[in-house]
Amino acid sequence: MKAVQYREIGGRPEVVEIDDPTPGPGQVLLKMTAAGLCHSDIAVMSWTKEQYRGELPLTLGHECVGTIIDASAGSRELITMGEKVLVYGPWGCGRCRQCAQGYENYCYNAGKFGIFPPGLGRAGGLAEYMLVDRARYLVPIGDLDPITAAPLTDAGLTPYHAVMHSLPKLKAHSTAVVFGVGGLGHVAIQLLKHLTPSTVIALDVSEKNLELARKVGADYVFKSDQDAVKSVKDLTEGLGAEVVFDFVGIQATADLGAQMTRVRGDWNLVGIGGGVAKVGFGLLPYECQVFSPYWGTRADLYDVVDLARKGIINIHTEKYALDDAPEAYRRLEAGAIVGRAVIDPTLKESVLE
Amino acid sequence: MKAVQYREIGGRPEVVEIDDPTPGPGQVLLKMTAAGLCHSDIAVMSWTKEQYRGELPLTLGHECVGTIIDASAGSRELITMGEKVLVYGPWGCGRCRQCAQGYENYCYNAGKFGIFPPGLGRAGGLAEYMLVDRARYLVPIGDLDPITAAPLTDAGLTPYHAVMHSLPKLKAHSTAVVFGVGGLGHVAIQLLKHLTPSTVIALDVSEKNLELARKVGADYVFKSDQDAVKSVKDLTEGLGAEVVFDFVGIQATADLGAQMTRVRGDWNLVGIGGGVAKVGFGLLPYECQVFSPYWGTRADLYDVVDLARKGIINIHTEKYALDDAPEAYRRLEAGAIVGRAVIDPTLKESVLE
Amino acid sequence: MKAVQYREIGGRPEVVEIDDPTPGPGQVLLKMTAAGLCHSDIAVMSWTKEQYRGELPLTLGHECVGTIIDASAGSRELITMGEKVLVYGPWGCGRCRQCAQGYENYCYNAGKFGIFPPGLGRAGGLAEYMLVDRARYLVPIGDLDPITAAPLTDAGLTPYHAVMHSLPKLKAHSTAVVFGVGGLGHVAIQLLKHLTPSTVIALDVSEKNLELARKVGADYVFKSDQDAVKSVKDLTEGLGAEVVFDFVGIQATADLGAQMTRVRGDWNLVGIGGGVAKVGFGLLPYECQVFSPYWGTRADLYDVVDLARKGIINIHTEKYALDDAPEAYRRLEAGAIVGRAVIDPTLKESVLE
Amino acid sequence: MKAVQYREIGGRPEVVEIDDPTPGPGQVLLKMTAAGLCHSDIAVMSWTKEQYRGELPLTLGHECVGTIIDASAGSRELITMGEKVLVYGPWGCGRCRQCAQGYENYCYNAGKFGIFPPGLGRAGGLAEYMLVDRARYLVPIGDLDPITAAPLTDAGLTPYHAVMHSLPKLKAHSTAVVFGVGGLGHVAIQLLKHLTPSTVIALDVSEKNLELARKVGADYVFKSDQDAVKSVKDLTEGLGAEVVFDFVGIQATADLGAQMTRVRGDWNLVGIGGGVAKVGFGLLPYECQVFSPYWGTRADLYDVVDLARKGIINIHTEKYALDDAPEAYRRLEAGAIVGRAVIDPTLKESVLE
Repeated sequence: MKAVQYREIGGRPEVVEIDDPTPGPGQVLLKMTAAGLCHSDIAVMSWTKEQYRGELPLTLGHECVGTIIDASAGSRELITMGEKVLVYGPWGCGRCRQCAQGYENYCYNAGKFGIFPPGLGRAGGLAEYMLVDRARYLVPIGDLDPITAAPLTDAGLTPYHAVMHSLPKLKAHSTAVVFGVGGLGHVAIQLLKHLTPSTVIALDVSEKNLELARKVGADYVFKSDQDAVKSVKDLTEGLGAEVVFDFVGIQATADLGAQMTRVRGDWNLVGIGGGVAKVGFGLLPYECQVFSPYWGTRADLYDVVDLARKGIINIHTEKYALDDAPEAYRRLEAGAIVGRAVIDPTLKESVLE
Repeated sequence: MKAVQYREIGGRPEVVEIDDPTPGPGQVLLKMTAAGLCHSDIAVMSWTKEQYRGELPLTLGHECVGTIIDASAGSRELITMGEKVLVYGPWGCGRCRQCAQGYENYCYNAGKFGIFPPGLGRAGGLAEYMLVDRARYLVPIGDLDPITAAPLTDAGLTPYHAVMHSLPKLKAHSTAVVFGVGGLGHVAIQLLKHLTPSTVIALDVSEKNLELARKVGADYVFKSDQDAVKSVKDLTEGLGAEVVFDFVGIQATADLGAQMTRVRGDWNLVGIGGGVAKVGFGLLPYECQVFSPYWGTRADLYDVVDLARKGIINIHTEKYALDDAPEAYRRLEAGAIVGRAVIDPTLKESVLE
Repeated sequence: MKAVQYREIGGRPEVVEIDDPTPGPGQVLLKMTAAGLCHSDIAVMSWTKEQYRGELPLTLGHECVGTIIDASAGSRELITMGEKVLVYGPWGCGRCRQCAQGYENYCYNAGKFGIFPPGLGRAGGLAEYMLVDRARYLVPIGDLDPITAAPLTDAGLTPYHAVMHSLPKLKAHSTAVVFGVGGLGHVAIQLLKHLTPSTVIALDVSEKNLELARKVGADYVFKSDQDAVKSVKDLTEGLGAEVVFDFVGIQATADLGAQMTRVRGDWNLVGIGGGVAKVGFGLLPYECQVFSPYWGTRADLYDVVDLARKGIINIHTEKYALDDAPEAYRRLEAGAIVGRAVIDPTLKESVLE
Repeated sequence: MKAVQYREIGGRPEVVEIDDPTPGPGQVLLKMTAAGLCHSDIAVMSWTKEQYRGELPLTLGHECVGTIIDASAGSRELITMGEKVLVYGPWGCGRCRQCAQGYENYCYNAGKFGIFPPGLGRAGGLAEYMLVDRARYLVPIGDLDPITAAPLTDAGLTPYHAVMHSLPKLKAHSTAVVFGVGGLGHVAIQLLKHLTPSTVIALDVSEKNLELARKVGADYVFKSDQDAVKSVKDLTEGLGAEVVFDFVGIQATADLGAQMTRVRGDWNLVGIGGGVAKVGFGLLPYECQVFSPYWGTRADLYDVVDLARKGIINIHTEKYALDDAPEAYRRLEAGAIVGRAVIDPTLKESVLE
């Protein structure tokens, strides 16, 4: 079959022909119908030999949608042939105290047992077929379009998990600030507007992104700079926002975010830009909780799919063929993708002219 | 191997010789070191052909402890040979919305997929060996004695789940009432005394059980009758108990329990004695929550094992050999077991004289 | 001043002239701009001398809006003259454990200390002026119209409190059933549609009310009968609704509601129609919580006002003058009021022709 | 009456004779039986004219116990003459959204309205009599000794609030780390040992304090240095502690604490030593929440008093007379007080020889 692989440390994604996979014990075989590209893929391909511990060559793709066409005993009785499914990404051991609570994204054993998310260490979905280790990772998508469904498992799931953490703090009088209106941020705004009655303020350095924020429902948008602090304070009786979501996570957004937090608030640092938040007596309002969440739970993913099926969240996508993946990754690196680039592995030829 | 089986509707438990099991896909093989007897076994054996939908013959035993001696691919990488483990009972599909949240005891698909708890529909642990379908059902017990560990998975897990539900309501000024100081109730008292600073009142009709209640830490014990209502009211400034646990669940305890509840309290109906609680405006204090929990979660079972390892809970047991199981069941039916009857399948001959 | 009073047991509401009130220690004086009529008023006027323990004559009205025109020391420093405020109803001691947690509606001491809600035992707001005992009962309404704001304090607050209790159970895949699309039920539907992504099913015996349900956002409406049970089951994969709200609370709705509940669900019995829900092992799905809430907290009322100010909830009202109150009560008793009847005490003469 | 006052910026505490107070509107008059000294008093007396905004002269003392001997209308109906009460410290407006939720310690209006805690801006309890603004600040202590009860309102309340925040994370398998075994830390250890089944590790630089930690129940004690990180890791399978409490809050403890946190853990920064915790992707385990709580709620204080009445927490105290206060403050500054220094205002003469 055709697959997009990262073949050696320092390499570039390549389209290659490899053997069709067959399901081993407990595994499920998917015929792929969509797989999204993500900045994390690029990050992984930049790691050194010491940093990257997954398999090589690595079939890329962790935002995967496919149709179940085979399954081994152990999984077979839990699935239906022909089911269209989204693949949950942060695989865990299923057995530890975190997994037992449904927090497979925080599995205590994944590192120890060498369990990696598909596409980020294990063979992913940028291929015609894909193996999934456990039936439990498969969330049915019903009649959702595979292309728009694929990014739900990361660009949808990550902000959903963050928003749900802070939901009880977001009442009609509350304010939520969203830093960064990219792939995750523009979903966060939709979630906040539909799941809470709070006022949503979006901050970004790009006017185009602020425009997108307005379109998906932000009540206020501001250029992300020191003036924005005053604007947020003015809109909140000087008290700051109940919840600040930072999907950028660089030092500049951390420095601004700190000035917008409120007593008993939440400050979610989702972005992985290396920014550092400082917490201590007198530095932040009392009992404002600061933390860095990671991805989401399987139960969260069910909810995200349900929200998409109800039309409550929408992720903008650009469609490519498997053969286009190397070019699509180049565009992603160049910041030339609007929304999410998604590969359709059923396309036999390039959609690029 | 030797096994204790329920072989046909209307039959009695029999000791039989059957083939040794071998692990199929994803399964784990245990050499059994303990298996508890439970009133639920007797209930299942009383069901009609229409009511009982599990396999026949059925190897009994759902409170199971053993040592891992084999495992198929799919499970093998998640376990350690020689691990001493307790078997979680309420198996689920692992895939539905309840299972994804860690509530496998409330699996939406178990009925649909014909998934039964071991010993209550699938082959259980009253045998020399036992197959467990998934590695995730195995909770390590460390150096706990298998005999005292076995009942933790039901007689420990069920009250723990109920107590945890109500824990936030049990402060130093609060009162918890426990109806029924049997296998579950005497564990509930220990949990309440060690996990909360509340005052614990135990109610029972048997003086012997009230004595046990005192021994395991109840602050007050009363004969379970109308006078007890006055006693509870007197101890709670007339306001009733924050939480009422009913491990009996007959109409008499339901009628008394109703009179002891408090505004914003909890009334846990755990016992399956057919009692009916009546809820409605004016019948109970405002916002007192009434519900019937069932068994517990895997995460709960980890906690229960940890509590036992720390010596916080202790379950009284009587030890028997596999050959003694029919007699032990007779004693259980006759109410002649103190605490929990547990079979030691490593004993080659009867311990009865 | 003019006031609408219930003057003696068995009497009818009368318009009378009484002395203008002046604020005692800690009290605040309001010039009234709106006061709603409620079925509870009629209930209180039907009580016997033994049942009714409040003051007589009683100025009616517990849904009160006014403008602060005077305040004693103790309150003065906490308010602003001219503030337009809604009066929180379930007054408490402010000192007990429930009040300390913000649950003044469940005050332990209100009964003991003879503290009654205004209009239901203490002088209420159906008058030109009203005294409020504590500044903390006053929630600013900003530029909300007093007439539409008045019912928020009961017809808005009660369903809000019930909905918030169950909010964590209402995800995109969830179903909420609302029995009774009257004053409270039609607000509950609005709250559910705006604060949760769940599917809302409204049930009523009146076609007119089902039409209202559709208008305020219900996804499905059904005649409240046995067929509705099948409809709800069909819409929920046979599992029932995550949350059932019963704003009617008669035996017929209790009997139907029981058949629609789900494992780990909530069944809120808000209506005071005397219906009885039966809870016990095997009667309801596991861990479905049944309870009767009462009114709401002050924090809830802030939220309700905020929701109204954001246009998220709207209560239909009919406006009357103080002189019209006796007639308006007659219409309320006759079921001839659409939405909520609200008195405008600033009207000098009847609006009835 | 005799009072201990801070009379001017830069001054020292002095024993002075001032007029007996009489209760104004809503106020309650206490005859004082105990008042604790605290490092916060010294901090306040070190502030500049710009920093200190409270009244001058200031009667000191915010850990106050007394007997109710008078009350004005507005409070009178809520209290009982002769009640022995502890005074809640972080007074608020009682009206804002935080106060309405019971979080008076985080009142939005206290600053705006010039509301200060007694002894830290308003007249406190280091005197023969004390005025309390609202009856709701008074928590009955029953038969507790006033001297040992006084510190409950700060040295008891602050760690209780922190511990309760993290309670759901502290199961039998969990670990809690406590930095600093002083006035607050030694109470935290008692709370953790009695309210949770977790393992408690105490860290301090003083051997004497580590001895105290052992005495009040810590499972392990370590010198607070880099080696302690390894010790904590070794005791937690390399995963860190579920909850870290820092009652010191200097940079050294912040640097060590960061290395002991766990995924989905809590890191409570209670101490006000100026330490800074750094949060960001890759810096701390995922979803570990970092925050600085402040004091506690009134509901918390009820619980703390109940715990003391049940003998679950004990605070070591040294007793002095009002005349000894200047000397006691000197000893406090010199670190020469073991536990808490408490003044007994009923003593007519010095207890110092």
